[in-house]
Amino acid sequence: MVPMNLNPTGSADYVLTGHWSKKACEEARKTGPVRVVASSEKTGFDRIPDLAIESQDPAAAFLHITSNETIQGIKWTVEPPAQEKVPLVCDMSSDIASQPVDVNKYGLIYAGAQKNLGPAGVTVVVVRNDLLERSSDNLPAILNYKLLASKDSMYNTPPTYGIYMVGLVLNWLAENGGLEKAGERSRMKSGLIYEVIDQSGGFYKGHAQPQDRSTMNTTFTLGDESLTSKFLEKSVKNGLIGLKGHRSVGGVRASLYNALPIEAVETLVQFMKEFERANG
Amino acid sequence: MVPMNLNPTGSADYVLTGHWSKKACEEARKTGPVRVVASSEKTGFDRIPDLAIESQDPAAAFLHITSNETIQGIKWTVEPPAQEKVPLVCDMSSDIASQPVDVNKYGLIYAGAQKNLGPAGVTVVVVRNDLLERSSDNLPAILNYKLLASKDSMYNTPPTYGIYMVGLVLNWLAENGGLEKAGERSRMKSGLIYEVIDQSGGFYKGHAQPQDRSTMNTTFTLGDESLTSKFLEKSVKNGLIGLKGHRSVGGVRASLYNALPIEAVETLVQFMKEFERANG
Repeated sequence: MVPMNLNPTGSADYVLTGHWSKKACEEARKTGPVRVVASSEKTGFDRIPDLAIESQDPAAAFLHITSNETIQGIKWTVEPPAQEKVPLVCDMSSDIASQPVDVNKYGLIYAGAQKNLGPAGVTVVVVRNDLLERSSDNLPAILNYKLLASKDSMYNTPPTYGIYMVGLVLNWLAENGGLEKAGERSRMKSGLIYEVIDQSGGFYKGHAQPQDRSTMNTTFTLGDESLTSKFLEKSVKNGLIGLKGHRSVGGVRASLYNALPIEAVETLVQFMKEFERANG
Repeated sequence: MVPMNLNPTGSADYVLTGHWSKKACEEARKTGPVRVVASSEKTGFDRIPDLAIESQDPAAAFLHITSNETIQGIKWTVEPPAQEKVPLVCDMSSDIASQPVDVNKYGLIYAGAQKNLGPAGVTVVVVRNDLLERSSDNLPAILNYKLLASKDSMYNTPPTYGIYMVGLVLNWLAENGGLEKAGERSRMKSGLIYEVIDQSGGFYKGHAQPQDRSTMNTTFTLGDESLTSKFLEKSVKNGLIGLKGHRSVGGVRASLYNALPIEAVETLVQFMKEFERANG
């Protein structure tokens, strides 16, 4: 929907940092011209690529980033530099509400609710008023940001139950210290796991380069395939489920969305240390 | 989405029977050529218009109808005749699961769940396999029926909670006699109201022509505006809410979706009779 609304005639710049930003770019190609201005695909999406401001199109419709890549476990820690008149567009589906964000730096933020905000079936869009003017009247009504905004997101019957649930989650976040505290919890949870990785002397290998590590999805591999299988089998027996990494990266992935309590991470960390002792 | 998927190059035929079929037609115009082959707009959408087969385009991409019009309170009681090679497409949002339907007569059925099936935020699409082949690879993935079907409707994370709720409603329907019984209940509920209207000697005037009356939404007016206001005020005091008709039709509208128990209709019918006695 973003390119349909924001990019009716121009070209858009995309930064590829993993599975989801690549998908977004492929979809955008269906709507109009797209330029890849930076990519870390050659190194297996293990980092945020260098993004020189000179490489960007000063007349681009927007610059698109994905703030957190769930499969590769990397994330933007600061917003990239952008050309003066080019709005920054960000897919925050997997790390929205996990830390404070300066929305003034963005032209448009979009995020599926199902990671940190509530049930699947709700998408949050935060868009600068002036960008709404780009939405063409020829767009189908259900895809037209300008129309949806003018009707307070109720042009059609909205997913009421999902929105209600998002409200409850936001209240819960507010009652628990807001986004500042959510950010602290995320850094603490992911930090515990990265610490075990870094102190394992290579027994565990983090997929992401340390400076671009995600606080939402920690990804790592073990020495070989059989050891990884053993790790995953044993972890399930210890009540730790859903740790298998995506097939494109392999290894292990522990996701740490807002709903995951610190105790779950402590249990995993304990298990990782014991597994290393027994198999290292 | 229907015209985007089914009508990539051709023209589509639309029958206008009220607010929603007109909206569907307007949206379709954004995608490609559209022909209105029949309309009852001149008589205030008070009936299903005559639809001669000769007036239809034998090469149309599809023939579109809206099986039930919530605002005008009219409905198709039998499927219209269509040209041999033209698939019938139907928006069943407001009367799906209210009666048995011979799906073989349709090329595509679509329906928002929020009337008879479950919470808002789920849409059901039943589509003939051969029609999926019309979906172009250039369509955005989230709008591509062929892609969604090939991934068992899970190309993206689906609205899990809403789907779960639809499942519960379908189980409830099955346990309560299935669609045969649902149809009986709908005819009985609407019949009670239409009976009061017909026996009121003109005190209540049904908006819809008797042969095309909806079993989901009963619409009627009273002699004048002040009497209508009095009716609506008094009904609220009697615990009957949500009876105000849509501004385009005026008067009174009682909606009788699957979730509404017969007792609610009996209370309304009792109130209508008493109001007529006191004000007739």
